[in-house]
Amino acid sequence: MGKVSKNMRIGVITKILTENPNTLYTLNFFTEQFNCAKSTLSEDIDVIAELFKQYNLGKIESFAGASGGIIYKPSMSEEQVNDLAKELCLRLKEESRIIPGGYVYMNDIFYDPSLAHKIGKALANPFFDKEIDYVVTIETKGIPLALMTARVLNKPMVVIRKSAKLTEGTTIQMNYITGSSKTIKTMSLAKRAIPKGSKILFVDDFMKAGGTARGVIDLMDEFEAEVVGVAVVMTTKWPEEKLVDDFYYLVELENVYEEEKEIKVYPKK
Amino acid sequence: MGKVSKNMRIGVITKILTENPNTLYTLNFFTEQFNCAKSTLSEDIDVIAELFKQYNLGKIESFAGASGGIIYKPSMSEEQVNDLAKELCLRLKEESRIIPGGYVYMNDIFYDPSLAHKIGKALANPFFDKEIDYVVTIETKGIPLALMTARVLNKPMVVIRKSAKLTEGTTIQMNYITGSSKTIKTMSLAKRAIPKGSKILFVDDFMKAGGTARGVIDLMDEFEAEVVGVAVVMTTKWPEEKLVDDFYYLVELENVYEEEKEIKVYPKK
Repeated sequence: MGKVSKNMRIGVITKILTENPNTLYTLNFFTEQFNCAKSTLSEDIDVIAELFKQYNLGKIESFAGASGGIIYKPSMSEEQVNDLAKELCLRLKEESRIIPGGYVYMNDIFYDPSLAHKIGKALANPFFDKEIDYVVTIETKGIPLALMTARVLNKPMVVIRKSAKLTEGTTIQMNYITGSSKTIKTMSLAKRAIPKGSKILFVDDFMKAGGTARGVIDLMDEFEAEVVGVAVVMTTKWPEEKLVDDFYYLVELENVYEEEKEIKVYPKK
Repeated sequence: MGKVSKNMRIGVITKILTENPNTLYTLNFFTEQFNCAKSTLSEDIDVIAELFKQYNLGKIESFAGASGGIIYKPSMSEEQVNDLAKELCLRLKEESRIIPGGYVYMNDIFYDPSLAHKIGKALANPFFDKEIDYVVTIETKGIPLALMTARVLNKPMVVIRKSAKLTEGTTIQMNYITGSSKTIKTMSLAKRAIPKGSKILFVDDFMKAGGTARGVIDLMDEFEAEVVGVAVVMTTKWPEEKLVDDFYYLVELENVYEEEKEIKVYPKK
């Protein structure tokens, strides 16, 4: 192949980086693809880093040296995270979402792929520079959000089941008590899913008292793995005292007033 | 903002299109962002369309006229789909995947976000030019694949549950009989999840006799919605006669030989 124009190189590199977040590409990978000099490529990367910065599209980091290369981190500014939280609140407040019993219908929000992608970016945001080996969730509603978080961090996702499955081989099962309704539930995970010593980010859609998160921390303990972060989209104001010490969230549900048809939900302060 | 260089414009447009597949952007959206003439932008788009084509990165389609614009379709060539199917087969053949009972452990493959994204692209591929309103799956293992398919097609995902949930309000429930083991199972879906007259693409990880797919077609009938496509990652060679007439798949499982520790699986011919 002959010479490739600078415009084309910038387009191709941008496409590849965007589709493969948090993935290290060596400079050689691109110089071979374009049959160009390293110095030429370095100039291209400067342009790309600059345009990502200028348009708030995330961060391009480059590493010098023999093992050097570039990596695209879809990081968000505080303002971008806050804008997303506000957008979520606006949608969550729609009164048609109120379900008898004081529940809020949220599936259409969490199952919207474009919104799930944005939420995944926001949930991954505080964890780019932490060592994470697996993004773990528990079925069912957290799966899309955990998958998008895992995609942004470029780590595998693991789904804890609510009962053991024939198709998963040897599993470790554990009972746990939900924090708010005090009912006994079961979680089950294939023994091979998580190696000893792994660092875990637990992602879920919703946290009330934190019983599920507490259960996941205990289950990971059985795998000799450590939960180094907990990230949920929505938490409830009550109970104020949660069963996990530290967690990250985007919006807080204060209350659902069924009669008044009002849902009080706020972005994280 | 002053003039933006052509390099930068091409980078920014490529970034936005890549992150928002199957989404129509008007030319105005970009001319306003860059404060540039339409003719300038048209030239940029020609470069982008050309580089996507030359590097097999998907298709950029442009529409002329007042309501015109551009759209990025992450379409794959036949060869790219076949390469992915071969890659999947190589991984699925690993003998350590065999689980007592002749099952194959596949979670690490389907829960790998980057692979799930590629699979989603491949499953969406035949449906870019069909009218689809919702991508539907049934919990649990199909969710990551359905989400990625939905993301590529830019359509909402809907997840059928195996039992009714308090948090989903009024649901429609249906019993169905699995095709191979002839057991009775239940599916449940919130009444508000799918409006009448919707066109549905059903996505799942696995199809044996097709009982689940048949059940979903029947459930969608209750919603007065029409299943216009069925796409699964893996199907089994036996039974040859499936309960659905037409479906799209990537790989075929011929047999699992537990004693010989051999998994026979092939790309779609």
